[in-house]
Amino acid sequence: MPESSVPNDPSLMEKIVNLSKRRGFVFPSAEIYGGFRSTYDYGPIGVQLLRNVKDAWWRAMVQMRDDVVGIDAAILSPPAIWEASGHLENFTDPLVDCRQCRERFREDQLVDPTTCPNCGGTGTFTEARQFNLMFKTHAGPVESDAAVAYLRPETAQGMFVNFSNVLQTSRKKPPFGIAQIGKSFRNEITPRNFIFRSREFEQMEMEYFIHPDADWLACHEEWLRWCQDWLQSIGLPASHLSLHEHPKEKLAFYSRRTVDIMFRYPFGVQELWGIAARSDYDLKQHQQHSGVPQVYFDEATKQKVVPHVIEPAVGVDRILLAILCAGYAEEDVTDDKGNVEKRTVLRLSPRIAPVKVAVLPLLKNKEALVARARELHAKLKRNYAVFYDEGGAIGRRYRRQDEIGTPWCVTIDFETIEKDGTFTLRERDSMQQRRLTEAELFQLLAEQVY
Amino acid sequence: MPESSVPNDPSLMEKIVNLSKRRGFVFPSAEIYGGFRSTYDYGPIGVQLLRNVKDAWWRAMVQMRDDVVGIDAAILSPPAIWEASGHLENFTDPLVDCRQCRERFREDQLVDPTTCPNCGGTGTFTEARQFNLMFKTHAGPVESDAAVAYLRPETAQGMFVNFSNVLQTSRKKPPFGIAQIGKSFRNEITPRNFIFRSREFEQMEMEYFIHPDADWLACHEEWLRWCQDWLQSIGLPASHLSLHEHPKEKLAFYSRRTVDIMFRYPFGVQELWGIAARSDYDLKQHQQHSGVPQVYFDEATKQKVVPHVIEPAVGVDRILLAILCAGYAEEDVTDDKGNVEKRTVLRLSPRIAPVKVAVLPLLKNKEALVARARELHAKLKRNYAVFYDEGGAIGRRYRRQDEIGTPWCVTIDFETIEKDGTFTLRERDSMQQRRLTEAELFQLLAEQVY
Repeated sequence: MPESSVPNDPSLMEKIVNLSKRRGFVFPSAEIYGGFRSTYDYGPIGVQLLRNVKDAWWRAMVQMRDDVVGIDAAILSPPAIWEASGHLENFTDPLVDCRQCRERFREDQLVDPTTCPNCGGTGTFTEARQFNLMFKTHAGPVESDAAVAYLRPETAQGMFVNFSNVLQTSRKKPPFGIAQIGKSFRNEITPRNFIFRSREFEQMEMEYFIHPDADWLACHEEWLRWCQDWLQSIGLPASHLSLHEHPKEKLAFYSRRTVDIMFRYPFGVQELWGIAARSDYDLKQHQQHSGVPQVYFDEATKQKVVPHVIEPAVGVDRILLAILCAGYAEEDVTDDKGNVEKRTVLRLSPRIAPVKVAVLPLLKNKEALVARARELHAKLKRNYAVFYDEGGAIGRRYRRQDEIGTPWCVTIDFETIEKDGTFTLRERDSMQQRRLTEAELFQLLAEQVY
Repeated sequence: MPESSVPNDPSLMEKIVNLSKRRGFVFPSAEIYGGFRSTYDYGPIGVQLLRNVKDAWWRAMVQMRDDVVGIDAAILSPPAIWEASGHLENFTDPLVDCRQCRERFREDQLVDPTTCPNCGGTGTFTEARQFNLMFKTHAGPVESDAAVAYLRPETAQGMFVNFSNVLQTSRKKPPFGIAQIGKSFRNEITPRNFIFRSREFEQMEMEYFIHPDADWLACHEEWLRWCQDWLQSIGLPASHLSLHEHPKEKLAFYSRRTVDIMFRYPFGVQELWGIAARSDYDLKQHQQHSGVPQVYFDEATKQKVVPHVIEPAVGVDRILLAILCAGYAEEDVTDDKGNVEKRTVLRLSPRIAPVKVAVLPLLKNKEALVARARELHAKLKRNYAVFYDEGGAIGRRYRRQDEIGTPWCVTIDFETIEKDGTFTLRERDSMQQRRLTEAELFQLLAEQVY
């Protein structure tokens, strides 16, 4: 039994940042140059976790569903898209400068809007001006207005501008969805909370197109349920999840409803996944700005209609952080000799765990043990991310795997090579051990890892 | 037998661009706004092909190898990295302006360096100036020099600046490699040839670190072989591949050897995969610029050493285009009634084909056929990208799958539901049909798709 899953530990974030660095989940970007403006790099273990989360989403969202197809649109995009979407005008934060110390602040985050938190000046702020959060660059050899390009601040517009192309090529009609996983960029004034809010992040978004007269509320509820179910399917506990309904009066005029799935992070309950009913706003905007009809032919009414849309949008990095926060635990455990030691364990679902199985020969100087371990390892890695480790005492090797969330360790011992060929299977959470055959191991993996 | 695999068809590129658009492989980016500066979006079928290529590479490069780990580094990066790497100074093209018509050209691509190809002016060019190919932007609320950020022009530097972090966290020592898949950006003056050279593209790079005294040439040869084998393992024919050894006198001073694997595209034999022996140049540059030692402890000599590196670097989009070019074929086929019609077929390896199996009920108005087809489809999609299609004559449905490279079609017919439960399996390339059981189908897939 875990002594503590440290849910309210104020130092939990610090522990997670440290573990991330120590075990290769997340490194500060360009660290040898002092880091770079709240960007992060995923290390060898982190990238496996990232891939597993994205693959699980893609499998559930695209592969398993007959009504959703994927795309992968470009990050560089022309102003025309963001003019139509409203981002050029409205995707802004209000900024003020202190005339005394020249520091710059987000006006809506100032505790005291008259006093500079940096130099203490009173009444030294300039009028607020709107600062656009899109990263701007220039494509082509001339830095003119005509060459301006933006890094997309969301993947969603990629689905809208490709709506007609997908409609024509995919043999789908509403209700159907277009899904995408990819990087987005927002020039946040105050990135914070590790990978929770950074300037470069990855999104998993899906636009689900429905007939204007369809029961949008039922569809919205269905996606809300789907998203919660999926989060639990990769191991996030229901106890950490809650819903936040955006008040009607705060919704944009075109928006019918937005509900956020919230996650209880160590720094507070924060938005994880937004599920929005966006009416036909986006397609109508693109229709108007591009002059290209954004319609489909409805067989029932024999009319061309602009569909409405339900949009579940989630950040991969936020999911990753939620997984680390929910999975992190410290326990006092007692060894064979009665010594109590602390173990750190990440309780990750086998589906998303970076390493599925660690293969450990009991002793590294016994050729037969090593040969059998290597043989098993070679067989497993054809289908799974596995790790071979022969270094150090077996208990220490278990601990190393616990820290990166490996659900199972398989030890090749003398019983394996001298008796019945069975291995010791050591389970991460219970730390219990039992013997099993190679066939049983493959069956266990086939059932638990998908 | 194929009538023609159109290898020297001058219109092959046009056919591939058309097929890509028509069947959802590749769309011009922001097409409803007239497209955007040679960027492209992958459609529903293209994104599946893209994922399969990347997954196959990751599996071979990271999952199957004990000596390579992955990372996923940020795209936004500080000038310090590119100063150390030399990109700020040297990653340039020479540009000239025509003083008469104001057009801008790459000097090294001018056929006649004295005459403007746009307005015909003679002697109207300015002196050439070096134009840096990196996309520049600003991070944070102030557009000052201190806020400058670049979109990485290659993923490689992400491996170099994380060398120490990976070394400390991954229990690896040279010889070992760090691999990455991710987007890179180059402000090409003249993007061309569809997705072959565009401003936004995806790379798969690996930096393999070896001891300074190791046999670098043997290691280089080994990776050269590995890359060629891998390309063939995903179905690219050896007949389209060749090698280009960079002449010694054209190598950078630090470079020991570079060999490119070339592919015979319809527009010429072009670079697909570069395999470079880069000595210890990159790590030494970062060591010097950051002041942080880029070394590992060599147990044999008990010394701290800066390793050398072998770098295989390939563009995903170029592989995709190679796959389409090599796989595209047009054939005259004769139907049951003796009519000759043309079929377009993409001969893709089952490993990378976007759809593995199409499940087709012979008739859509026979409930028992449809029910059995849907049941099989539901079972298959748990593990594979599959497609259910009940619309139109069976021959037409086969043709649709041929065009996107689906290796197998399974037809549920009256024999299936009234006799022995077997299906008709129709093979894409031979168009031959045979009957098989569900168990045989799953075995076929397990053997061919990995």
